[in-house]
Amino acid sequence: MNYSIIFYMIGWILNIEAGFLLLPCLTALIYGEKEGLSFVAVLLICLLIGIPLVLKKPQNKVFYLREGFVSTSLSWIVLSCMGALPFLLSGAISNPIDALFETVSGFTTTGASILSEVEQLPRCVLFWRSFTHWIGGMGVLVFLLILLPMSGGSHMNLMKAESPGPSVSRLAPKVKTTARVLYLIYFFLTALLVGLLVLGGMPLFDSLVHAFGTAGTGGFSIKNDSIAGYNTYLQVVITVFMVLFGINFNAYFFLLLKKFRQAFDIEEVRTYLSIILIAILIITFNISGLFPDFGHAFQQAAFQVASIITTTGFATTDFNAWPQVSRTILVILMFIGACAGSTGGGIKVSRLILLVKSVAKELQLTLHPRSIKKIQIDGKSVEHEVIRSTNVFLVVYIMVFTVSLLLISFDNLDMVTNFTAVAATINNIGPGLELVGPSGNFAMFSGFSKLVLIFDMLAGRLELFPLLLLFSKNTWKKF
Amino acid sequence: MNYSIIFYMIGWILNIEAGFLLLPCLTALIYGEKEGLSFVAVLLICLLIGIPLVLKKPQNKVFYLREGFVSTSLSWIVLSCMGALPFLLSGAISNPIDALFETVSGFTTTGASILSEVEQLPRCVLFWRSFTHWIGGMGVLVFLLILLPMSGGSHMNLMKAESPGPSVSRLAPKVKTTARVLYLIYFFLTALLVGLLVLGGMPLFDSLVHAFGTAGTGGFSIKNDSIAGYNTYLQVVITVFMVLFGINFNAYFFLLLKKFRQAFDIEEVRTYLSIILIAILIITFNISGLFPDFGHAFQQAAFQVASIITTTGFATTDFNAWPQVSRTILVILMFIGACAGSTGGGIKVSRLILLVKSVAKELQLTLHPRSIKKIQIDGKSVEHEVIRSTNVFLVVYIMVFTVSLLLISFDNLDMVTNFTAVAATINNIGPGLELVGPSGNFAMFSGFSKLVLIFDMLAGRLELFPLLLLFSKNTWKKF
Repeated sequence: MNYSIIFYMIGWILNIEAGFLLLPCLTALIYGEKEGLSFVAVLLICLLIGIPLVLKKPQNKVFYLREGFVSTSLSWIVLSCMGALPFLLSGAISNPIDALFETVSGFTTTGASILSEVEQLPRCVLFWRSFTHWIGGMGVLVFLLILLPMSGGSHMNLMKAESPGPSVSRLAPKVKTTARVLYLIYFFLTALLVGLLVLGGMPLFDSLVHAFGTAGTGGFSIKNDSIAGYNTYLQVVITVFMVLFGINFNAYFFLLLKKFRQAFDIEEVRTYLSIILIAILIITFNISGLFPDFGHAFQQAAFQVASIITTTGFATTDFNAWPQVSRTILVILMFIGACAGSTGGGIKVSRLILLVKSVAKELQLTLHPRSIKKIQIDGKSVEHEVIRSTNVFLVVYIMVFTVSLLLISFDNLDMVTNFTAVAATINNIGPGLELVGPSGNFAMFSGFSKLVLIFDMLAGRLELFPLLLLFSKNTWKKF
Repeated sequence: MNYSIIFYMIGWILNIEAGFLLLPCLTALIYGEKEGLSFVAVLLICLLIGIPLVLKKPQNKVFYLREGFVSTSLSWIVLSCMGALPFLLSGAISNPIDALFETVSGFTTTGASILSEVEQLPRCVLFWRSFTHWIGGMGVLVFLLILLPMSGGSHMNLMKAESPGPSVSRLAPKVKTTARVLYLIYFFLTALLVGLLVLGGMPLFDSLVHAFGTAGTGGFSIKNDSIAGYNTYLQVVITVFMVLFGINFNAYFFLLLKKFRQAFDIEEVRTYLSIILIAILIITFNISGLFPDFGHAFQQAAFQVASIITTTGFATTDFNAWPQVSRTILVILMFIGACAGSTGGGIKVSRLILLVKSVAKELQLTLHPRSIKKIQIDGKSVEHEVIRSTNVFLVVYIMVFTVSLLLISFDNLDMVTNFTAVAATINNIGPGLELVGPSGNFAMFSGFSKLVLIFDMLAGRLELFPLLLLFSKNTWKKF
């Protein structure tokens, strides 16, 4: 393990976090909130630790996948611990574990909250809470790649560790350019959303925080009833943008390059959109009795389906009260998740496609033992390593899920609450069903269970392996 | 597809079933029950169809894995349909879907029942209901292998299709000998159990049916409260024998050969026993408040753990009322299941070991990308195909599970009932939680949902692939 380069990276992360903290400071200044001082304090602490770490340049430039995984995991942990401080210092959240839970939920774009009353919080705190979604959505290390001059291998190994999905596609020949393009698309789409929300009559502040929550597929709102109180136009705009942010960003890149055909031909995107459509239709019919007309039912079904499959977690209605078919579909969507290379969480549609194709291939092999056919996606053969790691991902996912479920069951809450609490955190969604449904929150869990769920949120966002590697003693061997 | 050999096989299955039906006829004769006539009628129908099919010898002896899978699936379906007739004819069950559900539940050793009152049923019906467990436990095609002179390849392809577990180990050089040894062990252990039960004061008839339910890891009882009404000695004997029938029969084969060291060195068996022990201990502490002393809690925990992990499904207490930790552990055990090569269901401990080892290997590869280490079990390298098919098994398992969960959710029962109903059927256990808990049954499901659960029971018993292959149009191509 090359420790010097990891400390160097963490230093950079702290400095960048200081930069991000300027925004809530500015918010406090605009609204004249004294809680802004806690943000200034944390900003200074970040710089105080970050700058010395950065000044000590690493002699050893060796940076393998191992270093990528470890520095990514540690960066996210440091980022969350620091990000939690303003909640504590400002008095918005009094319990340290709760503050950490809320911050990790923010950065991992989960949106699960321990707060039942958010409307009376200071604006700077609300801004920071939602801004963590935006930072975490595209990834802070990807952001770092834009700023930092690093050797080639390290770039790719960082991207691999932080980007969601079974494999990383380089959009541009250089990883640095890829990272820049990704952030550019991200920034542009967010700005567009803010504009459309303001046009629909949403106040600018509300528009900004909800755009952060949508873009990062996070789900924190500044209203106790999430998005339910806003008008239909605003709900529809957010529905559409949730779906858009769940799409593989490769599609937007192709659009930028005017390769329209390639953009619309991405198998993952078409499957993702098909799943959404089918889910909306079934749920619309299933819940039609609960709404005055078909249109209303459709709009509500669309919002909730988009919110859950993209793992955003906004709500406009209490879907916990829906009939069992709709609830079951939503739970299934929780696991499927969004496209790889989007800001969404979950298992990812591309993994699903790979797994289904591997089943088809196995059936084929049973019928014709000597057939040799490689699994293809978008007309290209998928490498054996990708399939193997997808399988292993599934196994680790089930293991982490099962152990978490068992650990939080010691709180003796009902099984659906426990099951969907783990599902909502490991898939970075936010709300689940029953006690953690849209009208509930995560406050009633014990401190221990909250730590388990914090782990799940981080494990889900970093796609398990980077975080799991921290627990292997071989990882920490010097070399 | 070689149709002629498949019809030939099904003919044999019918004749064997006719042979098995002699036993309930005999029971009816002993107890002077007129319902015995319905068994005689079905026996004749079986022979009427079976004998002509057997007389027409197949010209084409080609028998690939495909033929093995298809004939196995079809045999089980025919076996179940015929086996359901006596329930209908005798008037014990009036609805045909219910009769099929009960019979499939019997043959697949699930033990899920649609009957709430079993005590007033005629003895011949109760005998047949439990005897299906014993037939299905070891497998009827394995039985056929002992009788039928067939070419070498077909033997293996039948064993592969019907034997539970990721791979078939030949105990003896000849498959026929292997099958014979398996049935010998099975018969001997069952007889031993009957003896011990009779010694403990259980009437002979009760001892026989409960031995069938234990040996096949089925779980049908002849009492409404399952095993709860019998004394502690009898409960302990059944606990021990449930565990014994969940052990890989290879272990007994090694014992027969006096290879004691090899018998106790089987990794799967040691893991299986360790899981049982840990689960019992945690549950004992968790439920200790519900029982007068530690000993009682331990005995009840042991019985329920053994019953669930071996997928038997007997109950001595309503574990649905236990605290959440115990319920969660039992649900996890439902999925783990027993050892491969036993009569139990579930995912199987050996698959679990393979999957965990593949994760460890992947972590190793992340740290040392150039390490080449094969996964080993019992000191032997596991072939790549076995690992691949284990992964595919897991994926298919999740797919079947998810689709089933969605389909039965149309009945609008609660989610825990639905989830554990699918878990209890696909893993061939019997009881689940809530409405399908030990004090409930499967009667309230709609006919459609029952058909889904029937499919799940068969899919679980035949380990998915044979049944799934029936739905591929390529399977039915002539060649």
